[in-house]
Amino acid sequence: MEVLFEKERPIPPYVRVTVNSLKRLVKDIFIALGVRECDAEVVADVLVTADLMGISSHGVQRVERYVSGIELGAVNVNAEMKFIIDNSAISVLDADNGLGHVAALKAIVHAIEKAKQFGVGIVLVRRSHHYGIAGYYALRAVEHGMIGVSMTNSEPLVAYIGTVERYLGTNPVAFAIPRKQPPPILYDGALSVTPVGKIEVYSKIGKDVPAGWVISSSGEIMSGDAKRIYDAIRRREAAILPLGGYLEEFGGHKGSGLALIVDILCGVLSGAAWGNHVGYTTVKNANVGHAFMAIDISRFMKLEEFYERLEQMISEIKSLKKSPWAQNIWIPGEKAWLTMQTRLKIGIPLHINIFENLKKIASRVGIRFDVEVVEERLT
Amino acid sequence: MEVLFEKERPIPPYVRVTVNSLKRLVKDIFIALGVRECDAEVVADVLVTADLMGISSHGVQRVERYVSGIELGAVNVNAEMKFIIDNSAISVLDADNGLGHVAALKAIVHAIEKAKQFGVGIVLVRRSHHYGIAGYYALRAVEHGMIGVSMTNSEPLVAYIGTVERYLGTNPVAFAIPRKQPPPILYDGALSVTPVGKIEVYSKIGKDVPAGWVISSSGEIMSGDAKRIYDAIRRREAAILPLGGYLEEFGGHKGSGLALIVDILCGVLSGAAWGNHVGYTTVKNANVGHAFMAIDISRFMKLEEFYERLEQMISEIKSLKKSPWAQNIWIPGEKAWLTMQTRLKIGIPLHINIFENLKKIASRVGIRFDVEVVEERLT
Repeated sequence: MEVLFEKERPIPPYVRVTVNSLKRLVKDIFIALGVRECDAEVVADVLVTADLMGISSHGVQRVERYVSGIELGAVNVNAEMKFIIDNSAISVLDADNGLGHVAALKAIVHAIEKAKQFGVGIVLVRRSHHYGIAGYYALRAVEHGMIGVSMTNSEPLVAYIGTVERYLGTNPVAFAIPRKQPPPILYDGALSVTPVGKIEVYSKIGKDVPAGWVISSSGEIMSGDAKRIYDAIRRREAAILPLGGYLEEFGGHKGSGLALIVDILCGVLSGAAWGNHVGYTTVKNANVGHAFMAIDISRFMKLEEFYERLEQMISEIKSLKKSPWAQNIWIPGEKAWLTMQTRLKIGIPLHINIFENLKKIASRVGIRFDVEVVEERLT
Repeated sequence: MEVLFEKERPIPPYVRVTVNSLKRLVKDIFIALGVRECDAEVVADVLVTADLMGISSHGVQRVERYVSGIELGAVNVNAEMKFIIDNSAISVLDADNGLGHVAALKAIVHAIEKAKQFGVGIVLVRRSHHYGIAGYYALRAVEHGMIGVSMTNSEPLVAYIGTVERYLGTNPVAFAIPRKQPPPILYDGALSVTPVGKIEVYSKIGKDVPAGWVISSSGEIMSGDAKRIYDAIRRREAAILPLGGYLEEFGGHKGSGLALIVDILCGVLSGAAWGNHVGYTTVKNANVGHAFMAIDISRFMKLEEFYERLEQMISEIKSLKKSPWAQNIWIPGEKAWLTMQTRLKIGIPLHINIFENLKKIASRVGIRFDVEVVEERLT
């Protein structure tokens, strides 16, 4: 029996398209804009993987953002990325304002090489751009039997605890840990109470924002109409709250403290921008910073032994007593992986607006739009 | 003008005692139990530092716990701790069931040595015991111009998202980052919504637990009488919620996901116990695991340049618009540091029960109780 699972159920109107045709389109769009073929392949793979995983906020709906960045000259398609520091187990990559996805992949591959040599490798990136889903890069380490860590700073959207202004990024952190059989463990989460993409999606599908996600610049906890709230954030009249919320009582100092640490590693230590100096993708010298780490498990114990121990832990968690409202006990990354298996078979659902937007972009950059639609659900 | 600040204001009945006399007492207690003098010095310093920082839950009120562990033979005072793996930038310390504080200090010192050599060092610890405040060890790296990371698993108290049983530890993580002038940044927080010590303290001072900290094993969110709730946790009829709470909507999967990652690093990868196999201090083979990392800042940029960048960031955060309910905008570790400066001058407040308990322990192990009281506030 075929089990179909989608972490994020598509909401009509949408079309479902084949993975390969979508990926080819995205790749061709970037090639048409002057991106090298190998780099275009990376960007297309990162974006389509996000859609495969059911993280549509970070998927092809963001093609527009990167395309604009290139068209405005903010993203350098001819970037000459260089490891400007390369010293024992650590390294710094200067991304020359190129595509964040390309820089990030170079960096984690280098961190994996370091980890092969030293057991652990840390690679920081400066002068980069938005890199898509953090987890994509952490997963690369898993292919080498390693633990992968990936984090980035991002445009200021989040209020530091005790303040009401956008200053910190949502600053996602991803950890990927290999298992004997897929799926690997993949923790990938912003250090804000919610990613901004979710509020954006809510504003599009008319869902209400719950009290506890957003604070206005006058210090009110906002809730309700997502469009109003999303617009307020964009106008800098509101900010997203850190994980844990606005009070120390429920750990808001933890969420904003951890986001601060991420920014110190990705921004201050790497030589990139930090806090509200980090630019959006359409801004010149956005100077986004990332940090990557790979840890070689085999230096600690035989990979087989690690796998056995981890499987025991996971089976223990799976047999814990469920809470009354939980359908299932999920290991981080499991839902994304099941969604990916499903969508590799039945295709990726795209909201009709996103589909139409890709059509427009294709025509704008002068390429054929030949995405194969396998299902249409318009109402 | 002398500014006095205490993060945790003492609640009568309490006495205030001198730092040195308290530290000497704690050290003497452990020596009387057969702990080597140098090791007793470490434990006393870690515990008294927690009180100095205003983290009384982790201070000398826990002497009883470690003393019981030694008396019951669970904590090995003659531990022969050995680095059983020592390979490029990574290492594993077998703590031989000795005091967690002693193992942790050895481990971070070793990680600092590794970082001097390779830019980064990771040291894991197995077969250890509860190590007190995580931040103490991370701060050691700061003394070398390095970033220090310290984390540990701990006895099962926290419900994994979607479950209602104690399985994960509170699994604190600390990051310490040096600044030009003290205080260094010190983030030190459990990945549960609250540390268990706070519920314990609330139960002693008769403060109510807010809804959102604890879940009963039947799936109810508990609130109110802290004593009832603390007892329910101890009887395994309730569990602490992860940072972010019990719903994915507010990020409960993030808190429990991060706590899971900490346990995989500290427990699974180190060769220690994990999840509900981790023992309390009075249990033989508690097999607590820790993880430490040191990162040498000077490999990335001149320390002076890092300091300047960090000071700019901090001054930016300090000038953000305050929320209406915030007295101040605090950088992680600032309150603890101010409390420490204050208490180094005016002494450490001890709840009268804790003071009396120390007296009893002193008499039990046969040493003089000569803690100097400088203030008494009994009502």
